[in-house]
Amino acid sequence: MTGLREYLDGPHKAARDVVREGLAAHTELLDAGLRLPRDEYRDEVLALLREMSAEAARGFPKEYGGQGDLGGFLAGFETLAFGDLSLMVKAGVQFGLFAGAILHLGTTRHHEAYLADAVEGRLLGCFAMTETGHGSNVQALGTTATYDPATGEFVVHTPTPAARKDYIGNAARHGRMAAVFAQLVVGGESHGVHCLLVPIRDEDGEPLPGVTLTDCGPKLGLNGVDNGRIVFDQVRVPREALLDRYAQVDADGNYQSDIENPDRRFFTMLGTLVQGRVSVGGAAINASKVALAIAIRYADGRRQFGAPGSAEETLLLDYRMHQRRLLPLLARTYALHFAQADLVAEFVRIFGGDAEAGDHDRRALEAQAAGTKAVGTWHATETIQQCREACGGAGYLAENRLAALKSDTDVFTTFEGDNTVLLQLVAKGLLTGYRESFGKLDPLGTARFIAAQAVEIAVEKTALRTMVERLRDAVPNRADVTDPDAGLRDDAYHAGLLRFREEHMLAGVARRLKGGIDAGDEPFEVFNRCQDHVIAAGRAHVDRVVLEAFQTAVQAAPAGAVRDRLKELYDLHALATIEADRAWYLEHGRLSGPRSKAITALVNELCGQVRPHAVALTEAFGVPGAAVEVPMVVPSQHE
Amino acid sequence: MTGLREYLDGPHKAARDVVREGLAAHTELLDAGLRLPRDEYRDEVLALLREMSAEAARGFPKEYGGQGDLGGFLAGFETLAFGDLSLMVKAGVQFGLFAGAILHLGTTRHHEAYLADAVEGRLLGCFAMTETGHGSNVQALGTTATYDPATGEFVVHTPTPAARKDYIGNAARHGRMAAVFAQLVVGGESHGVHCLLVPIRDEDGEPLPGVTLTDCGPKLGLNGVDNGRIVFDQVRVPREALLDRYAQVDADGNYQSDIENPDRRFFTMLGTLVQGRVSVGGAAINASKVALAIAIRYADGRRQFGAPGSAEETLLLDYRMHQRRLLPLLARTYALHFAQADLVAEFVRIFGGDAEAGDHDRRALEAQAAGTKAVGTWHATETIQQCREACGGAGYLAENRLAALKSDTDVFTTFEGDNTVLLQLVAKGLLTGYRESFGKLDPLGTARFIAAQAVEIAVEKTALRTMVERLRDAVPNRADVTDPDAGLRDDAYHAGLLRFREEHMLAGVARRLKGGIDAGDEPFEVFNRCQDHVIAAGRAHVDRVVLEAFQTAVQAAPAGAVRDRLKELYDLHALATIEADRAWYLEHGRLSGPRSKAITALVNELCGQVRPHAVALTEAFGVPGAAVEVPMVVPSQHE
Repeated sequence: MTGLREYLDGPHKAARDVVREGLAAHTELLDAGLRLPRDEYRDEVLALLREMSAEAARGFPKEYGGQGDLGGFLAGFETLAFGDLSLMVKAGVQFGLFAGAILHLGTTRHHEAYLADAVEGRLLGCFAMTETGHGSNVQALGTTATYDPATGEFVVHTPTPAARKDYIGNAARHGRMAAVFAQLVVGGESHGVHCLLVPIRDEDGEPLPGVTLTDCGPKLGLNGVDNGRIVFDQVRVPREALLDRYAQVDADGNYQSDIENPDRRFFTMLGTLVQGRVSVGGAAINASKVALAIAIRYADGRRQFGAPGSAEETLLLDYRMHQRRLLPLLARTYALHFAQADLVAEFVRIFGGDAEAGDHDRRALEAQAAGTKAVGTWHATETIQQCREACGGAGYLAENRLAALKSDTDVFTTFEGDNTVLLQLVAKGLLTGYRESFGKLDPLGTARFIAAQAVEIAVEKTALRTMVERLRDAVPNRADVTDPDAGLRDDAYHAGLLRFREEHMLAGVARRLKGGIDAGDEPFEVFNRCQDHVIAAGRAHVDRVVLEAFQTAVQAAPAGAVRDRLKELYDLHALATIEADRAWYLEHGRLSGPRSKAITALVNELCGQVRPHAVALTEAFGVPGAAVEVPMVVPSQHE
Repeated sequence: MTGLREYLDGPHKAARDVVREGLAAHTELLDAGLRLPRDEYRDEVLALLREMSAEAARGFPKEYGGQGDLGGFLAGFETLAFGDLSLMVKAGVQFGLFAGAILHLGTTRHHEAYLADAVEGRLLGCFAMTETGHGSNVQALGTTATYDPATGEFVVHTPTPAARKDYIGNAARHGRMAAVFAQLVVGGESHGVHCLLVPIRDEDGEPLPGVTLTDCGPKLGLNGVDNGRIVFDQVRVPREALLDRYAQVDADGNYQSDIENPDRRFFTMLGTLVQGRVSVGGAAINASKVALAIAIRYADGRRQFGAPGSAEETLLLDYRMHQRRLLPLLARTYALHFAQADLVAEFVRIFGGDAEAGDHDRRALEAQAAGTKAVGTWHATETIQQCREACGGAGYLAENRLAALKSDTDVFTTFEGDNTVLLQLVAKGLLTGYRESFGKLDPLGTARFIAAQAVEIAVEKTALRTMVERLRDAVPNRADVTDPDAGLRDDAYHAGLLRFREEHMLAGVARRLKGGIDAGDEPFEVFNRCQDHVIAAGRAHVDRVVLEAFQTAVQAAPAGAVRDRLKELYDLHALATIEADRAWYLEHGRLSGPRSKAITALVNELCGQVRPHAVALTEAFGVPGAAVEVPMVVPSQHE
């Protein structure tokens, strides 16, 4: 379909194409995980990482080997998901996390000493945050970095087995240095989690004294990445090892930070994680494209059963059920593609400019990244699973690549932030915003709320009542029984439903939280009682944002075939989303039974409309050929 | 919980315990797939298969090395899923499929020649049904077996690439003989698919002349099973190679069968597959138990976040969302356990007795097996996925075993019959039953309907009207708005809702099919338009059967703690099932909005009630220790 791929590629087409060419030139990596023993696979991934580092480093400042092109960097990175995902994840560890920590948390001293080497793949590093006992709750990490004024050094230590650094990429084999997150103790006082650069291996690859490195061993997937464990036994590093952009320790052991509030300081530092979340979400969406390109081509060639007496069996993709399984997921992949493009643009606006972005903008971006990551990665898990099943036994064979896609992407739902925790973050941000609009703002309390999962949120009753009334006016017509089909393909109708749902859920959560607190219940218990409601509200918000991103993309698309196809896909996505949550709309009087059934019928009809274009719609993703030309879709195999 | 494990083990406790002991004695197999190269792993699985063959063969007649205990055989087989799943699948191929084909499709001649060797693991065999071009549609297989009266032989041949036998267990390395499904051609006339025994390797393991064997290579999981491909080039076997229980060819080339109708003959022969489906469903349910035992123990020991200011973080399993993710799946696992026990009992009744069961009973059993297999295997995929995510990064490491459970069980949803095809089979059986009750029965047409996915089903309008009226009386009270909580834990209420749904959906499908046919539309098109509806109706039926199995099991349980715990789990299962389909009940006026919300609240409350017993409820499964005592749940790792 002329023009569709260009439209999807958007402003960073060049960066995407460079990565596509790189992947096309190295198709040997696609089956390296099957051909090679684990350590050799890891080494081959490393060799390619170094070869492609010039492109991957695109996002770094020019003075340190980069091109200062943040948007191209992110677009190129997510395009890596069209190839072997170990390479993508290893690049994420090296360039996104390790070099990113140096760039964002360090100062000129660190940039000059390490950045060029990190960006060009000479200095391989780890991002040593997660511990055996602490994943999502980073504030509770056990590793300590204690300042010793006698020597002017920090002593990095693992005080308990639970404080062991775990699942750390590059730790088992290749990493020479680690960005270590630890409780900073200065003058006997703990200042919370900070990041220090700690050498872990010498030039020969041997662990340095006091550093114990072990291999996490085989994993479900991503076996080209050398995840390992790090234990520190009183390891000494100079004072300058502290990445000191947001907090400094002077030679005499005086701690200083421009951000006075410890929670706010912590979350500012953690904000560097946002790039990782943007990247993982994008990679997940792109991995879904690969799986759909494979499964839809297979379904467009494979025949099974058919009309009795007919000479030929029926193509799988002509079955209603097969369309139902794959095409709404294709539509949602498009929706998420556009939502991700919006996120990248916003990321570039916030982090790519010269001016430091304000707290509010950064928080909003963090929530958007968290939400897109959660929904995008769950989408990948669901989509690749459906694709595997839709290809039957053939889909189970490694040679057809769905196995690797499934296994490699599976961890995306829990790394760079567990999805349920991320959706809580989204919802809490919204509740805070809610409160900012309607109640009295207490900045300290707000930060504490987000930080510690506290639930002292309180929406004034009057504000709540205003909100509910405003909602009542905004919702679509309830008298839909008279004509169940009316307006079902109307953008404003879809957006209205999703907005109503989001706002109603948030108001409901706020009311439950306030009610519990008012009744004197223990805040954590109050929160926990409606945790599922909180997470559902976060999800409702993301669904609405994704829907609107797709709407905007359709409106901005070139008139003609491109826009027509996108509008069809958009309608399918919108109605399938409403259909999936129709229980909620029915419960809340926003859909009648007949209208709900009409939506299901229309989803079926739209599947049929999209079907003739399905293969072309996957071709527009521009996945390099070798990644999708698997044995089961080579036509000669089936004749 | 005293007595619960015994109650779950039921009448075949001894057979289960023998397999448990065997697995406990061979824990080295649990990580063989990680330790060993693929071929060595396969050989280790084979060695254990032979060692355990005495038990696995329990279900065969005594004169051929078995014990004639069909129920114990099936219970023991599903217990194998507590260990390495490659061993379970390889046992299924060897004993269930290969030896099963000889037993069920062959006659005394075949039994005497091969059965003892097959049952004792000396003669390793394949079940060569699936082809590259044909999986579910077995009737369309391309392989031919042509009788040559000049030599008194059958010539087995692969005429096209699509007719290559594919994904065949035991074919890549160990199999010496294959039960080959082929179009039987006698005197120039094709008589449809029959099964023949064809030697494929000599004593040294070399392929025999005319037989080309290749390896399917690495798979997503089950890499201890040597799946391969078989191509036959005019391979000659004696006339006696035909498994001739249901059809015979004499030396002169006269074909004879007591079952005149070719479709009925075909489906009678295919009925031998029912044991495979019973087994896979049971294995999937047991694999779910292992995953839940791991994830629930992990969640009962792992702490993360918690109330601000409290000394200790909160156990994962005390979070509402974590309970929501795992405990309804625990409840459904119990439900499926009891449904599976019922299925095994019915299987023993039909196949274990001396008398040949009637067509009607066999068809009903086939539908029950197909439905339980579909729902049980999808349940396993969903459950193991949730368990993996609930264990975060730790769940992704191979050492914690969820990775293998996920990868190994994944193919269950599509092998031994693709789940969507199986649910269609269920629904079609019900539509036939429907028609038998209400309309005029045409046996030939009925067989054709099931056979060829034809849709000439027609329910008399009057019969339909009667049905609808009968339903109206049976459904629960619609005036539930006045007291949304009333009777929510009442068994009869749950069963009434599920029955109403099932019958309403079947009636709806029947009406749509009839309407389309009456309007003169092409039958296949009519069927395809409501394929999703057909499959949903099949699912609704299975859900109801599973629910009622759990009800019966609770009623029959020992009074006291066992029954109390089961009743709680049952309520959770029943209400979570209704909640999952509440959109449908709302659409059809069977739930009011307030009552629907009350159900969601009650599911949450029941999760809290089950939570204190959750670990004990997984211990009652009796999974051998090594399978669940993975590093992440050893407490010392976390302190």
